[in-house]
Amino acid sequence: MLDKINNPSDIKTLSNEKLQNLANEIRSFLVENVSVTGGHLASNLGIVEVTLALLKNFDFENDKIIFDVGHQSYIYKILTGRKDNLSTIRTYGGISGFPRRKESKYDFFDSGHASNSISAALGMARARDLDKKDYNIISIIGDGSLTGGMSFEALNDVGYRKSKMLIIFNDNGMAISNNVGSLSKYFNNIRVNTFYNKLKKRAHYKLDKHHSKKLTKIIRNIKNSIRGIFVPSTYFENLGLKYVGPVDGHNISKLNKIIKKIKLMDGPVVLHVKTIKGYGYSYAEDKPNLYHGVGKFEVASGELLKNKKSTYSEEFGLELTKLARKNKKIVAITAAMMEGTGLTKFASTYPDRFFDVGIAEEHAITFASGLALAGYKPYVAIYSSFLQRSFDQIIEDVCMQDLPVTIMVDRSGLVGEDGRTHHGILDTSFLSLIPNLAIMQPKCIEDLRLMLNYSVQYNHPLAIKYNKGTSNHNFKPLTNIEYGKWEIVRKGKKIAIIAYGRMLDIVSNVANKYNLCVINAYFIKPIDDDLINKFKKDNYKFIVLEEQELNGSLASVISLKHKVNVETIGIDDKYISHGTVEQLFDKIKINENELEKLVNKLLKND
Amino acid sequence: MLDKINNPSDIKTLSNEKLQNLANEIRSFLVENVSVTGGHLASNLGIVEVTLALLKNFDFENDKIIFDVGHQSYIYKILTGRKDNLSTIRTYGGISGFPRRKESKYDFFDSGHASNSISAALGMARARDLDKKDYNIISIIGDGSLTGGMSFEALNDVGYRKSKMLIIFNDNGMAISNNVGSLSKYFNNIRVNTFYNKLKKRAHYKLDKHHSKKLTKIIRNIKNSIRGIFVPSTYFENLGLKYVGPVDGHNISKLNKIIKKIKLMDGPVVLHVKTIKGYGYSYAEDKPNLYHGVGKFEVASGELLKNKKSTYSEEFGLELTKLARKNKKIVAITAAMMEGTGLTKFASTYPDRFFDVGIAEEHAITFASGLALAGYKPYVAIYSSFLQRSFDQIIEDVCMQDLPVTIMVDRSGLVGEDGRTHHGILDTSFLSLIPNLAIMQPKCIEDLRLMLNYSVQYNHPLAIKYNKGTSNHNFKPLTNIEYGKWEIVRKGKKIAIIAYGRMLDIVSNVANKYNLCVINAYFIKPIDDDLINKFKKDNYKFIVLEEQELNGSLASVISLKHKVNVETIGIDDKYISHGTVEQLFDKIKINENELEKLVNKLLKND
Repeated sequence: MLDKINNPSDIKTLSNEKLQNLANEIRSFLVENVSVTGGHLASNLGIVEVTLALLKNFDFENDKIIFDVGHQSYIYKILTGRKDNLSTIRTYGGISGFPRRKESKYDFFDSGHASNSISAALGMARARDLDKKDYNIISIIGDGSLTGGMSFEALNDVGYRKSKMLIIFNDNGMAISNNVGSLSKYFNNIRVNTFYNKLKKRAHYKLDKHHSKKLTKIIRNIKNSIRGIFVPSTYFENLGLKYVGPVDGHNISKLNKIIKKIKLMDGPVVLHVKTIKGYGYSYAEDKPNLYHGVGKFEVASGELLKNKKSTYSEEFGLELTKLARKNKKIVAITAAMMEGTGLTKFASTYPDRFFDVGIAEEHAITFASGLALAGYKPYVAIYSSFLQRSFDQIIEDVCMQDLPVTIMVDRSGLVGEDGRTHHGILDTSFLSLIPNLAIMQPKCIEDLRLMLNYSVQYNHPLAIKYNKGTSNHNFKPLTNIEYGKWEIVRKGKKIAIIAYGRMLDIVSNVANKYNLCVINAYFIKPIDDDLINKFKKDNYKFIVLEEQELNGSLASVISLKHKVNVETIGIDDKYISHGTVEQLFDKIKINENELEKLVNKLLKND
Repeated sequence: MLDKINNPSDIKTLSNEKLQNLANEIRSFLVENVSVTGGHLASNLGIVEVTLALLKNFDFENDKIIFDVGHQSYIYKILTGRKDNLSTIRTYGGISGFPRRKESKYDFFDSGHASNSISAALGMARARDLDKKDYNIISIIGDGSLTGGMSFEALNDVGYRKSKMLIIFNDNGMAISNNVGSLSKYFNNIRVNTFYNKLKKRAHYKLDKHHSKKLTKIIRNIKNSIRGIFVPSTYFENLGLKYVGPVDGHNISKLNKIIKKIKLMDGPVVLHVKTIKGYGYSYAEDKPNLYHGVGKFEVASGELLKNKKSTYSEEFGLELTKLARKNKKIVAITAAMMEGTGLTKFASTYPDRFFDVGIAEEHAITFASGLALAGYKPYVAIYSSFLQRSFDQIIEDVCMQDLPVTIMVDRSGLVGEDGRTHHGILDTSFLSLIPNLAIMQPKCIEDLRLMLNYSVQYNHPLAIKYNKGTSNHNFKPLTNIEYGKWEIVRKGKKIAIIAYGRMLDIVSNVANKYNLCVINAYFIKPIDDDLINKFKKDNYKFIVLEEQELNGSLASVISLKHKVNVETIGIDDKYISHGTVEQLFDKIKINENELEKLVNKLLKND
């Protein structure tokens, strides 16, 4: 049946049974595809029926939909003309793992980060109201994303002016890691309250039938009393939104029925759908966190084909757990990324000293500053691109107060398949501009361990950033960390190649061929002034390699402060698409070939 | 009586009547002082009794208190040994207008920005719990700050693990501007529910008397039913916090009584105090927004001694209002800063196209991106240092999607008396690193008008940033804006002085004396490559002046891209304290004298 679905209109005429069958087909198709490409699996398995119901009941030639985060948009892509491209998802030149307006007229907002969909949808809704038009605007947001403060800011505004919009609250009972926070407890509380829901549905039904204002008011009063007694209250209704649900998110027929009713309602409405993450693929259902974002796997056994090399993230978690045994003041904080940041072992070993605050990067950083002020030694692990959310808190609450918070900046540099919303290519710039903050980056896992040991006694704000995965070069590990110093990893003549992190992977051949000096700038801030002065005095020329934005880069700091000409390999003021890291490096000319060209240019001018 | 209060212990023994008298004395003292120094008046008048009650009931030798934003900490400063320094508040070398740990052992967190106090307090509370200690931790937060998403992130975490802490919810019915958002409506709803509160208080009383678990449970059930019927629910209780109140925040005796009871309660408690902004000084009570943050004024008449020169903020608002008449797609957005950003007239002229989203800078930016996607032309006006809160949204939701959102960056550069949390000295760096974003800064009000007119037809992300107040130089206004071009405002020889904004105020004398070229770099991004190449070819030397952090500065971009030596006047990796802008410029060596030194150095080396 899926073969015959080429655009959204093909779904409109299907009966509930056919849609349910189609859902099963879609699941098989999805699992087959993602087993080869890798990608977000469990969340997409959970939202098949909801997506079908939305496509059946809304008309996305006019209506608009925004997927929060957007990792759960695969089904929508399949059903809006991109079925045949699914095999290319997240690959170089293929379709994105997130909604992209350039990819389809059915995508309305380019997403990737959490908790912003309600804000964007509200902007569209207010614009539509000003235009006096009446199309529908829908935001789909998970329970995890609702813990992000930005969602709350938006809901507070939504409830205020009452623009018509539909918020699908996709409640699968967990954020990316297991759910945290009191809000999740509260939603659980709602879910079990079936008696209340039956009563409420009946009241709704009556509301549809009778339009007398007085009667409506009476029924509403009854409803409020009922709600008051059987469900303490609802978060959404407090904020001025109408709340409908919860409804079984895997029952097409129920979904269709309720959405039809909602379409007749005015103002902002929240539809609470209860879904099961990983639904329909037993391995994913059993371990939804593991199958949240996966690499390749074997469909029949569910076995993940894993890269066996250990990663920076994993090693960070293991080393911090070791250090925490000796130092009782060490605490670890994650914003809903326990597994991703390698903190699983720490969490189980020291549950009292581990804090998962939910998707709440702002709170995570300032919470850490409170712990530091009270004598603790917090390590906050956040992905580079998500750390952009904590920018103000790092400046004001950590660095301005000169507090010993260590920020573990995971996924610095290109991340590959997740693409442009997820690359960590701005962190050298946005961290370097913050006073009081020191920044380090390891070139190998041993360096990371050394840096962690160093950080324990370092009593000021510190960021340690590292690539996704690991490195691949033959330089020896650091034996000692010295504040603001760099490491000469290869002696040589005429040209000093300065690099950090994974960029050292691509310098060896050229350095050997031309007998050049290679410097590991493992302190990105402060820079090693003495070393630069020495090389400057000896008439070396400088090349700096960074998988980072050039404005504000290490190269720019060296150039301005030391008044030296610096040749650069880096990212020149642009966003980078998805693909393997190697493909992307080639595309943006961060590779051995380009380095050799630069070297030849400098040697020729010599 | 105030004469005899030198430290917190002097308050402990005072009776309720004496405290009430003391409150009156404090108000007179405060008004007299602020009328001379300027500063935050209305919010401090509102919190006199609450501060006294806290000091009477808690012991800040052990207990800790965090003021959200911190502009309402004057009374606390007066009563914790800084009474005699109040006349120096916000002046160079004097005490800060915000809590500062270096200023007093009674200050526990350096604040300035909104909505972070609960996060910091929770960090301290968890640290205390790990230490198995039992001191009290208090956060004081206003209704305005609660609209910031970060507060919600923190509350969600507070309710989860139930660390003991007290959140004083200081409800004066307005944010800095009038309150917005559905949450404020909701709180209003709570306030009028006196019947419920009476019942609730009785239930509380019973809870204190009986400790049998069963009885407690029965009473709690009764309470829930009561709440359910008479108040639909409470925001805080949904999030797992105990809620007490509301209580009259100007009645010392009631405050003392209720705080005594709260001290016996476990877990997180919210005390809702109802206060009147400006209480006790009729002019401030009548116009709390006007007296929120004031300059000098006459005590008897309440007359504000205003600088009559019009400001960038005011002119922005007037010009945008004009433009909006012709262009129906123009909309304006503020994050609770309507007056401060000059949007009052726009708001009254085009109420449908004006959006105050509350203290919610993240939402403000993404909301604008939604409006832009639907064909509108949004102008979002936010102070530079608060814009740090929207960093990720500018990157991901505006610039990555290349949307025509214009960000009006008010208070760029030094702001003077508000000091280090409020200076906008990082914006050149943190905006320049964002791909797709163009950045302009006017050197005078006429330039700002021209830029606004230019922006209407510019169809990409744009930031227009400008100083607090206005400029003071004799250069002529721009006659034409050209993308990525600069303006030669004075022709000259040997040295090109590049500056933007108010920095042009300090170059004239030196440029005239030495016959130097002066360039107005009104496009901070993209830079004028042609012009630089021309001057480079003609062997000019370059001096760049910026009241901005040097890492990532315009100077660093020029230096790296054009491989030229650039001499700089700017801010070298540090936070700047408070004082007049002139005093601060002298302190950090941004002045004519330093420029002349640099010029002499360059001419000597010539």
